[in-house]
Amino acid sequence: MESFIEIPEGSYYPLENIPYSTGHVRGGDQAHCLTRVGNTIVDLTFLEQIGILKTEKALFNTQTLNKFMSESREIWQSIRSQIQNLLRSDNQELQSSEHKTQALASLEEVQLSMPVNIGDYTDFYSSKNHAYNVGVMFRGPENALQPNWTRMPIGYHGRSSSVVVGGNVIRPRGQVCPPGGEPSFSICKKLDYELEIGCFVGGKTNDMGKSIDIADAYNNIFGIVLLNDWSARDIQAWEYIPLGPFTAKNFMTSISPWIVTLEALAPFKVPLEPQNPVPFPYLQDPDLFSYDIALKTFLKVPENDNTLISTSNMKYLYWSITQQLVHHTVTGCNMRPGDLLGSGTISGPTEDSLGCLLEISLNGKKPLQLPNGQQRTFLNDGDVLTIVGECKGNGFTIGLELPSAVVLPAVQDKYV
Amino acid sequence: MESFIEIPEGSYYPLENIPYSTGHVRGGDQAHCLTRVGNTIVDLTFLEQIGILKTEKALFNTQTLNKFMSESREIWQSIRSQIQNLLRSDNQELQSSEHKTQALASLEEVQLSMPVNIGDYTDFYSSKNHAYNVGVMFRGPENALQPNWTRMPIGYHGRSSSVVVGGNVIRPRGQVCPPGGEPSFSICKKLDYELEIGCFVGGKTNDMGKSIDIADAYNNIFGIVLLNDWSARDIQAWEYIPLGPFTAKNFMTSISPWIVTLEALAPFKVPLEPQNPVPFPYLQDPDLFSYDIALKTFLKVPENDNTLISTSNMKYLYWSITQQLVHHTVTGCNMRPGDLLGSGTISGPTEDSLGCLLEISLNGKKPLQLPNGQQRTFLNDGDVLTIVGECKGNGFTIGLELPSAVVLPAVQDKYV
Ligand SMILES: [Ca+2]
Ligand SMILES: [Ca+2]
Ligand SMILES: [Mg+2]
Ligand SMILES: [Mg+2]
Ligand code: NI
Repeated sequence: MESFIEIPEGSYYPLENIPYSTGHVRGGDQAHCLTRVGNTIVDLTFLEQIGILKTEKALFNTQTLNKFMSESREIWQSIRSQIQNLLRSDNQELQSSEHKTQALASLEEVQLSMPVNIGDYTDFYSSKNHAYNVGVMFRGPENALQPNWTRMPIGYHGRSSSVVVGGNVIRPRGQVCPPGGEPSFSICKKLDYELEIGCFVGGKTNDMGKSIDIADAYNNIFGIVLLNDWSARDIQAWEYIPLGPFTAKNFMTSISPWIVTLEALAPFKVPLEPQNPVPFPYLQDPDLFSYDIALKTFLKVPENDNTLISTSNMKYLYWSITQQLVHHTVTGCNMRPGDLLGSGTISGPTEDSLGCLLEISLNGKKPLQLPNGQQRTFLNDGDVLTIVGECKGNGFTIGLELPSAVVLPAVQDKYV
Repeated sequence: MESFIEIPEGSYYPLENIPYSTGHVRGGDQAHCLTRVGNTIVDLTFLEQIGILKTEKALFNTQTLNKFMSESREIWQSIRSQIQNLLRSDNQELQSSEHKTQALASLEEVQLSMPVNIGDYTDFYSSKNHAYNVGVMFRGPENALQPNWTRMPIGYHGRSSSVVVGGNVIRPRGQVCPPGGEPSFSICKKLDYELEIGCFVGGKTNDMGKSIDIADAYNNIFGIVLLNDWSARDIQAWEYIPLGPFTAKNFMTSISPWIVTLEALAPFKVPLEPQNPVPFPYLQDPDLFSYDIALKTFLKVPENDNTLISTSNMKYLYWSITQQLVHHTVTGCNMRPGDLLGSGTISGPTEDSLGCLLEISLNGKKPLQLPNGQQRTFLNDGDVLTIVGECKGNGFTIGLELPSAVVLPAVQDKYV
């Protein structure tokens, strides 16, 4: 699709994308709802205000996307087409409007903000490769995959307050205890990332005491982002029995700013492997799917170039995003538009497709070799991590970009 | 303290209480901030509007208490004294005001609402008796208390969307698997309650990457409620390894409507037992405290009278509410006013002071005997559960009341 807005060759933001976020345009004190085409930001709040973007009831007169996300898939689809049409090279309505300059902004003129008020964040564990690899390290091959793993999408509630767009990570401190050793209070020495996809819940959601049916779950998912579930592995190992990870995960979770809708992802939908054993009926999805999204992780250590250290893919997930959502509500948990569901670390079947350093370095036993003789087991201060997702369409690429994160040194005070 | 408002003998709401909640007064569409004296509701939003309650900046012009809770302990204390003074029998300002009738309402004229927008809910596990008793049942005496239990307040992130004031509980359905048996999809047959205290975070909280210091934690706790962490034990046993409880807990969490402040609880502060081993410095509280609050659980089964089945006490906690809050932030998790922290099931040292049926019935092996030959292992449909907290002051009692909950039958559909 041709737009009157210039779209650089290979841009992650063709007209086929139309992702959503929010931000302050030209220093405005209220965040506006936005989309992006090429390297140009389009101010949807403004376009709706001046009536160029026509909506039955106001959808973008808010500082977050929650109101828009609580609408139906039909509304999302009609708004998407309206925006695409407004930006087409053969449409003059915006192109020749006196408001065009105010409706558009360069990247530098916009300060992106957290696009969603996240009521609850849940992290799943839905990549078989990851679960098996980690299970082997912590519990040996026999107990690697718990018997419940292939029966339900295992997940745990995460912390929503520390979900941020991009951001640098401050090395945490906490209690650690080497196996058979004595616990101590220490800076985290096994700081790791976890490559995940985040799904944002939307549409008309279930009341408390009700469940979402597998046949309806697709329309309760608005879109996706890249998600990095920063993990303090040494702190996690000491705290997680019996109630699961807690402080090892709640210090920070980073997401990409632009939410890519399931509409944009439609051309990249791929079937998932048939599941064995066949799950219980409430989880049986006749259209078991994921998306073919190449997920590339880059690590830049000081004095070294940015290095691609892993290429995974969303298609490597075992459980689908609809199965995760359905299982989340099985006992009657009410979902809300804006809830965030993490897929769990996505690892592929090969050594160059693993989703975290815990797996890549075998919990520190097999350092990752980097150019110029450098190596890493986990992240050091000063390291820079970047994650990118790519959907290769014919003649266009839809991309997701998690802003680069620098590892900052731990706070130093009287405790350590 | 004498009030011009009639306070029935033994009322849980003397002038020494001044708890806070929100609700719709006489059918108003906006919830107001409220307090309660005897059986009379006092409309704080209205009193502030008409200037009888004097505030530097508006604190009660909102439908929840979050704005007020984000202020400092000094502000909370000055507002508390202002309210108490306004309601004293020897103060004419409100007593003779033309606005008095509009400022006061009977219980029937007010429909209470969820008083706090809860950003995150976290559930701890801080009663040694409970943790040991449950540990023995699930993992045998040797592994009952994990080695980490006495080193840190173990906790896990819960679900905030299903935290409600009171409410009836719909029996959940989900996956269960008897030990060594085959998993199945079933209605929950081990529906349980968990007697807890909920603490609401307030004041100026820590930014992401920072921690709350033990010396400051007291002023980041606004007040407490009773909390019932409804638990589906059979579903929990099959899902919790390795990432902790999830659907077994997220279907519902009930809290009492009136938040009792730490000011009101001051006369009931009691020291906690010295901890052994001595915790790490970041958790060492020179003023290790809890509160002497008798916690009574009543069970009314059909055709039977309401029966007291347990009397526990907040003083039985091992970890203090300040230690829980500090540990929650140790790796840099940012807290927000309105966050809710559950204490974990509070069990005493005796059989009549246990905090859940799992312990009382030894996971179903030893039914609880009730009048008229009735008995229970877990909750049946139609059972009614009520929890009450009492602080016996000299000449007054401060109480907390979790509205009675009826167990409703599970949804029936094509799945079960
Ligand atoms: Ca994760
Ligand atoms: Ca609990
Ligand atoms: Mg995280
Ligand atoms: Mg609960
Ligand atoms: Ni007047």
